[in-house]
Amino acid sequence: MIAVLAGGVGAARFLRGAVRLDAPVTAIVNTADDTVLHGLHISPDLDTVTYTVAGAIDPERGWGLANETWNAMEALARFEPVTPANSSAAPRWFNLGDRDLATHFYRTARLREGATLSEVSTEITQAWGVPCKIVPMSDDEVRTLVTLAEDCVAGKSGDEISFQEYFVKYRHDVRVASVRFAGSESAKPTFLQILRDAHKVIIAPSNPIVSIGPLRALAGVNDALASRRNDVVAISPIVGGKALKGPADRLMVELGMEPTVVGIARIYRDVCATLVIDEQDAHLADQVEELGMTCVVTDTIMSSPEVTERLAVTCGVLR
Amino acid sequence: MIAVLAGGVGAARFLRGAVRLDAPVTAIVNTADDTVLHGLHISPDLDTVTYTVAGAIDPERGWGLANETWNAMEALARFEPVTPANSSAAPRWFNLGDRDLATHFYRTARLREGATLSEVSTEITQAWGVPCKIVPMSDDEVRTLVTLAEDCVAGKSGDEISFQEYFVKYRHDVRVASVRFAGSESAKPTFLQILRDAHKVIIAPSNPIVSIGPLRALAGVNDALASRRNDVVAISPIVGGKALKGPADRLMVELGMEPTVVGIARIYRDVCATLVIDEQDAHLADQVEELGMTCVVTDTIMSSPEVTERLAVTCGVLR
Repeated sequence: MIAVLAGGVGAARFLRGAVRLDAPVTAIVNTADDTVLHGLHISPDLDTVTYTVAGAIDPERGWGLANETWNAMEALARFEPVTPANSSAAPRWFNLGDRDLATHFYRTARLREGATLSEVSTEITQAWGVPCKIVPMSDDEVRTLVTLAEDCVAGKSGDEISFQEYFVKYRHDVRVASVRFAGSESAKPTFLQILRDAHKVIIAPSNPIVSIGPLRALAGVNDALASRRNDVVAISPIVGGKALKGPADRLMVELGMEPTVVGIARIYRDVCATLVIDEQDAHLADQVEELGMTCVVTDTIMSSPEVTERLAVTCGVLR
Repeated sequence: MIAVLAGGVGAARFLRGAVRLDAPVTAIVNTADDTVLHGLHISPDLDTVTYTVAGAIDPERGWGLANETWNAMEALARFEPVTPANSSAAPRWFNLGDRDLATHFYRTARLREGATLSEVSTEITQAWGVPCKIVPMSDDEVRTLVTLAEDCVAGKSGDEISFQEYFVKYRHDVRVASVRFAGSESAKPTFLQILRDAHKVIIAPSNPIVSIGPLRALAGVNDALASRRNDVVAISPIVGGKALKGPADRLMVELGMEPTVVGIARIYRDVCATLVIDEQDAHLADQVEELGMTCVVTDTIMSSPEVTERLAVTCGVLR
């Protein structure tokens, strides 16, 4: 069994490639950007991974279902004029497709019945015919909270906001002062035994701060990874100094890190022996190796199923 | 101001007629058949009244919005095979249209923020441009619970089930042993002052047991009605021994009452001086009057806007 530590889109694409190769992967998915909207429990990363591996994701957006309709969200517009000024009810900045809603209905209803998020996730992946295990990082609540930098957005500077506000409402186009994972001290990780049993552990090309960071913040995870260090491989989400998707590069700069594969190596060196970087960054391989990691240079931009599968093979999903 | 005690479809049609006449009506609506499904707070009677008065109701079904789509509910089918046997999560027997969902999203989100159901209902009616006040009977939870008769449905005989299970899941096609309104002892009615201030109180042609019953079960309501008895008018929901819609006639039989306008008179005589019955029941007018009520005979079947408006005028919505 191969454990893959996963965030959203990048991890999902990698996992789809691995699953196409019939690799025995178990995805451990970030749930710190879960949120409750309209009373519904939304798990963006779990759903992105599930829908992508199932081949049901909208390939343009990278989230939500293909051939989706948006009638519920559009109907919500009617309530905007009557919403009190101090209310944040029924926001329209977080879009939920009509068919996607069924997933949130099922998850919310099962959680209310007392099922764990792990149990519900197993049921949802079965419903979608996903041929790999998808495990939420914890059954307990952990929430990524983002403190905005001073003077970064009118009326919000210095405020601590939820990850989804940062990511979706402000389109991660605001400067960040700090990030924390509320609840991570007491939340129990679901996957310590998986890390022990796994043949190999792959850190997917996800945001190292807000996607992989929450997994590593859980008690015992860094130690478990460190004890398997030689079997842990990370794929850099930074290529040519930029994140392929999302704010990883900017977040790294704002939090005082170097937004390069060398910066990624510094984040992962204690828990990971091998870093896979893109050919564009081949000139930085020596610097990565000087930090005590093996550096593998290959094509990491998952622009086609073939490239993705080759990347998965390079990372050792088959052996 | 005219107060109208209201359940679902029958009351909604009556109110629409009254509003078309510019009558100053305030609807007091049953909330004991409210339910939580998929984490969403559903208020069927409030929504039926709101959508009907707004002219947005589906006229065929009598509930939900016209020109509705059902993509979320259809997508829920995927989860049926994976739902554990002991789970009642994500039921498909209660249909929710995509555009209708926005109302439940807004209500649920506002209630979670601490708004009262009254406040939210006012906002929702404003959003729909409804030109009359629609007031939930209480901001506190009251739930109609139905105990099934013995041997009435496989595996459920003698069980106490929720109103929506009785009404929607079993299509009220099961025999009932008793009905109670859990929470009604402690729930505070919102409308005692309205009953005092109203020019006239009209009991809409709604189910006297499960629609008007919950309002009357709240502390002080029967006394408040009795003290205004001469100004209270009820419209019989029973015509020719049958309910025009729903199970009122069968429920009356099952609970030992006579399913006629005379049976209705017995239910309302203590709180209501005038009963409006249909021409089909003219031969029973004497029996109604013998019970101490004034009996008005007219066309009560609201088959057209004209008939509905005439009925509203007969009940005294204008004066």
